[in-house]
Amino acid sequence: MIAVLKHNATNEQIENLTAWLEGRGLKVHISRGDLYTILGLIGDTSQIDTELLEGLEMVDSVKRVSEPFKSANRKFHPADSVIEIPLPDSKGVLKIGGDENFQMIAGPCSVESPEQILSIAESVSASGATILRGGAFKPRTSPYDFQGLRADGIELLLEAKKRTGMPIVTEIMNANHLDLFDEVDIIQVGARNMQNFELLKELGKRQKPILLKRGLANTLQELLMSAEYIMAGGNHNIILCERGIRTFETYTRNTLDLSAIPMLRELTHLPVVIDPSHACGVARLVQPMAMAAAAAGAHGLIIEVHNDPVNALCDGAQSLTPEQFAKVAEKVQKIREVVTQA
Amino acid sequence: MIAVLKHNATNEQIENLTAWLEGRGLKVHISRGDLYTILGLIGDTSQIDTELLEGLEMVDSVKRVSEPFKSANRKFHPADSVIEIPLPDSKGVLKIGGDENFQMIAGPCSVESPEQILSIAESVSASGATILRGGAFKPRTSPYDFQGLRADGIELLLEAKKRTGMPIVTEIMNANHLDLFDEVDIIQVGARNMQNFELLKELGKRQKPILLKRGLANTLQELLMSAEYIMAGGNHNIILCERGIRTFETYTRNTLDLSAIPMLRELTHLPVVIDPSHACGVARLVQPMAMAAAAAGAHGLIIEVHNDPVNALCDGAQSLTPEQFAKVAEKVQKIREVVTQA
Amino acid sequence: MIAVLKHNATNEQIENLTAWLEGRGLKVHISRGDLYTILGLIGDTSQIDTELLEGLEMVDSVKRVSEPFKSANRKFHPADSVIEIPLPDSKGVLKIGGDENFQMIAGPCSVESPEQILSIAESVSASGATILRGGAFKPRTSPYDFQGLRADGIELLLEAKKRTGMPIVTEIMNANHLDLFDEVDIIQVGARNMQNFELLKELGKRQKPILLKRGLANTLQELLMSAEYIMAGGNHNIILCERGIRTFETYTRNTLDLSAIPMLRELTHLPVVIDPSHACGVARLVQPMAMAAAAAGAHGLIIEVHNDPVNALCDGAQSLTPEQFAKVAEKVQKIREVVTQA
Amino acid sequence: MIAVLKHNATNEQIENLTAWLEGRGLKVHISRGDLYTILGLIGDTSQIDTELLEGLEMVDSVKRVSEPFKSANRKFHPADSVIEIPLPDSKGVLKIGGDENFQMIAGPCSVESPEQILSIAESVSASGATILRGGAFKPRTSPYDFQGLRADGIELLLEAKKRTGMPIVTEIMNANHLDLFDEVDIIQVGARNMQNFELLKELGKRQKPILLKRGLANTLQELLMSAEYIMAGGNHNIILCERGIRTFETYTRNTLDLSAIPMLRELTHLPVVIDPSHACGVARLVQPMAMAAAAAGAHGLIIEVHNDPVNALCDGAQSLTPEQFAKVAEKVQKIREVVTQA
Repeated sequence: MIAVLKHNATNEQIENLTAWLEGRGLKVHISRGDLYTILGLIGDTSQIDTELLEGLEMVDSVKRVSEPFKSANRKFHPADSVIEIPLPDSKGVLKIGGDENFQMIAGPCSVESPEQILSIAESVSASGATILRGGAFKPRTSPYDFQGLRADGIELLLEAKKRTGMPIVTEIMNANHLDLFDEVDIIQVGARNMQNFELLKELGKRQKPILLKRGLANTLQELLMSAEYIMAGGNHNIILCERGIRTFETYTRNTLDLSAIPMLRELTHLPVVIDPSHACGVARLVQPMAMAAAAAGAHGLIIEVHNDPVNALCDGAQSLTPEQFAKVAEKVQKIREVVTQA
Repeated sequence: MIAVLKHNATNEQIENLTAWLEGRGLKVHISRGDLYTILGLIGDTSQIDTELLEGLEMVDSVKRVSEPFKSANRKFHPADSVIEIPLPDSKGVLKIGGDENFQMIAGPCSVESPEQILSIAESVSASGATILRGGAFKPRTSPYDFQGLRADGIELLLEAKKRTGMPIVTEIMNANHLDLFDEVDIIQVGARNMQNFELLKELGKRQKPILLKRGLANTLQELLMSAEYIMAGGNHNIILCERGIRTFETYTRNTLDLSAIPMLRELTHLPVVIDPSHACGVARLVQPMAMAAAAAGAHGLIIEVHNDPVNALCDGAQSLTPEQFAKVAEKVQKIREVVTQA
Repeated sequence: MIAVLKHNATNEQIENLTAWLEGRGLKVHISRGDLYTILGLIGDTSQIDTELLEGLEMVDSVKRVSEPFKSANRKFHPADSVIEIPLPDSKGVLKIGGDENFQMIAGPCSVESPEQILSIAESVSASGATILRGGAFKPRTSPYDFQGLRADGIELLLEAKKRTGMPIVTEIMNANHLDLFDEVDIIQVGARNMQNFELLKELGKRQKPILLKRGLANTLQELLMSAEYIMAGGNHNIILCERGIRTFETYTRNTLDLSAIPMLRELTHLPVVIDPSHACGVARLVQPMAMAAAAAGAHGLIIEVHNDPVNALCDGAQSLTPEQFAKVAEKVQKIREVVTQA
Repeated sequence: MIAVLKHNATNEQIENLTAWLEGRGLKVHISRGDLYTILGLIGDTSQIDTELLEGLEMVDSVKRVSEPFKSANRKFHPADSVIEIPLPDSKGVLKIGGDENFQMIAGPCSVESPEQILSIAESVSASGATILRGGAFKPRTSPYDFQGLRADGIELLLEAKKRTGMPIVTEIMNANHLDLFDEVDIIQVGARNMQNFELLKELGKRQKPILLKRGLANTLQELLMSAEYIMAGGNHNIILCERGIRTFETYTRNTLDLSAIPMLRELTHLPVVIDPSHACGVARLVQPMAMAAAAAGAHGLIIEVHNDPVNALCDGAQSLTPEQFAKVAEKVQKIREVVTQA
């Protein structure tokens, strides 16, 4: 960590600050320039609050040199993490992460009925999807919008898992519901709860894989700090997910930040999956962006599929039909072959 | 609500859509143009999900004409809401909202000790602050940062309330902690929890005043929809708070959006307060921005004050000393006089 | 175009507004609701200034239904435009645009010397690049930074063109320099000049192909309106270029908006190329993002290549070596095969 | 300037880099940590290109300690600059800048006719405006929108100046038009041309006061670097203008960044004025934001006024009537009294 002091900082102030920093176990190197004095702080600086240090009158600015995340940091864990998801009936595990393990996650936005979820599960499975997604608890901007089938939705997902053998992923919104998620294979933390730290702490106490979505306006560093909350509790089974960020552009609902893939893969050992459906908001952009995500090195995709978007009038804006999904899956598979060739 | 249909929408499609909309109780007016057909939807459209409608192949775009919030909407409640906060010992109420009722909320970022909170409370009260703030549960980006004194912090705030007669406001992060907030006068929902809908629903079940902070990257409409979640549960005692939004600018920590004040006052009857401390991140910007907020018509200010920012090394970036606060309070008072003059 | 009027608009106001609109040749359909009156305006609305209409007291909001761009609009020109770039010595043309014509543009950030530009030109040509890029006039944020070799730089590019047979593209910053660009094959308008309307008008008077870069904070609609400025003057040879937009994220220099590719291809018939070098700012992100751009359907790539980034100390942050470029070009070629397969 | 090197940088690489930096006249201090090596660079670093240095493989990140602007920097010019604008007929000068000199600039968006500009000039002058604004050359997003009266518009402004004695400010879009601006008192550079460096260089060759508007998505540092372009040419008569930045919020046209006022006043000695009309887009937000700007310490305001916004149908969204302007001017005057009180 580097602290730049203003040129009018007095010797006494600098000595006091140095003593305080040394008291926290840091070594302090001082370089004096004409306009500024620079303090180089060596040691475990993760305990130092940058913003608070910047608040001191004598301090011009503070810069972290080492990232504030540790468990998620590739520097301390150079090899890719591979998250294992147990298949039902002791049929082994699915892997996600590393150069070889790519998974397609697919399913409806909301679980609606036993027939709907089973029919979609079977068709996406036939096209190559290996994990079933479906919303039971739904975060909606408006209190007047459909809030999901909640506990009943999870029951329907578990039933579909039993029938198809696909592991399932669904979103949690409240740590009080954790008991309902016992047989859920991957727990999703949605974009709006990425910094619900109380929830993250609870999830850190279990060994269940977590799909952690980046918030709409959160930096990659904040995403990794939220992963760090879960990992600090002991749960290292984390899959990161980029799903579009909020920008000034209005033609697309969000701006899918695909450069997050190589950037995250450099910063962390955790796997990175992409959700093109939520990012784009319209089905016709999903195929090109799914292909692009695979080309950029994603470890997986999470795609919304609906069995009957035309009749199901109030859905479909961002959902593919099973036929469209099959085509995407085929193209993505070919892109993966190019990516993994030496 | 207006739905613009693409020019290749077939008559059958249009009839199906119209029938479906009429089945939801809406009247549908159709205007056919050369390139587009426009459906004007009249009735209670708050139940219609815009994004889902936009997902239909035949739909070009959808535009809400009436806002999706009702209880918070000034159109249905033209008079300013005035929130009443009971003073201890049956000494009447403090009011916030309307043209006349302006309140200064002040206190430390975190509650640290009995002496600290009491000393700050007494000094800010002497300078005109009427409500005491202080963090007990602290949302921190890093799991390694200080997380607040939690329940003990609330105890210290309640003790300061008893001694000074000032009502208190402090942040909640988890509905499970609600019992601890029984004697807290205003419950704060922080920016990161603005869309923690499970928490908002719980807060809607009580009559306690809520200070609802705008998320870093949330629109004014989303802020009002979050207020609507609380109001839909029956609690109409809501104070909105702007505290800076995330933009590309890096010299200031966040960009304080003061145009939110007149814009919110037009859209809603709820009072609007401004937090210049968190928005700017540095104490020397707090005075001009506090004055500007008052000039723009805010109903109150929430300002961080620390008794000894120099010795208390790890604080102060954004906190004023009691002396600086006294000066701000005096200037703000004079600005208020200009604002309220006929 | 739709104008939503406030419910307190008087009949007289509505009649006046309607008369004024009809005087501009528009047909006006009126739908009255309880809270709003909606005017549907049919006809050539491109002459109506949306923002000015929104300023009227009685108007709640205005929404364009047809886009304000015409010449660039795919609705009026359904087939892809294919831009032809003449090869030197009457050796035919290079094509860019449509599903089949993909071009790799490569070269150094700045032209520095005859040896540098020739050496890079030869090596990228051997790896599959078909067009040579190089900066002669350089827009620099600081007046103290290197401003380019200017006219001399163009001379060196023309010399390299003569020797290698590659068409060249370079940036213009001032219409007064146009004479220098007579033998330049594609004139680039940089991001900072995307809304330099005086320059755009001058470029509209020639038939020279223009590479129009999206501004750092410009919407896709604004990009298309800038294309429209050039096209309105008679020059329809426009290649659009996405090169990253400004967002809150700081790990990457800009956020490359790849969803712009399918979105632009839907809105316009003009070809779309991607500049991953400027967007990412660091060479190690260029390969994955180049592959992703090709997978998303781009018509070409523009990539910075430097012959000796290690010795040439003050360059290279975002430039590839010729060897790295060769590898990117090979991978991109394979991605293109997947994209163009039926 | 600080350069942080990766821990795998070899001694030879570090020595080469150090030698290269010393060759540019800098002193280099080296601090070695476990994970990083930090180079502190002392001397004139404004000639070093940060981004290019960051591109070196061995470099983790680079941070400027001293700002890259010099002439505009308050560190080297502690006293406020006061820009003097000569009044016609040798009646002395108007001053802008410093704690005491506040000016109100007012006038129509576009100059339309002799009667219009004269009538507005007289009425705003009576209400306390001291400088007349009016658009002659208009930058419009659409080529089909009204582009201004151009040279004729300037003639009308000069006529109004002669009749009323008010200095005038109007926008330039092309350095080729400079001859037309000989008698214009302040030349405005609009937001879209803030980084039209060729234009800035031309303006640096004259001593005419320049009103430099911040681009929609430009940082304060970029604004100051553009001022630096003009100052590097010898013209130090620059007035900075904040007019709203582009954010995700859509209720307001732009987000007026009032914290730019105290921040710029800290960074530079140049005066700062605020344009609330363009930022907000609607007249009813202009009064509160004008008051807020004055309260935050602006040196002036630039406000659009139209004599007849109701009849002049295609204007007025953001323009005040002369009566509304008179009220704003009165309130602003009272706020200024509070600001300038000891």
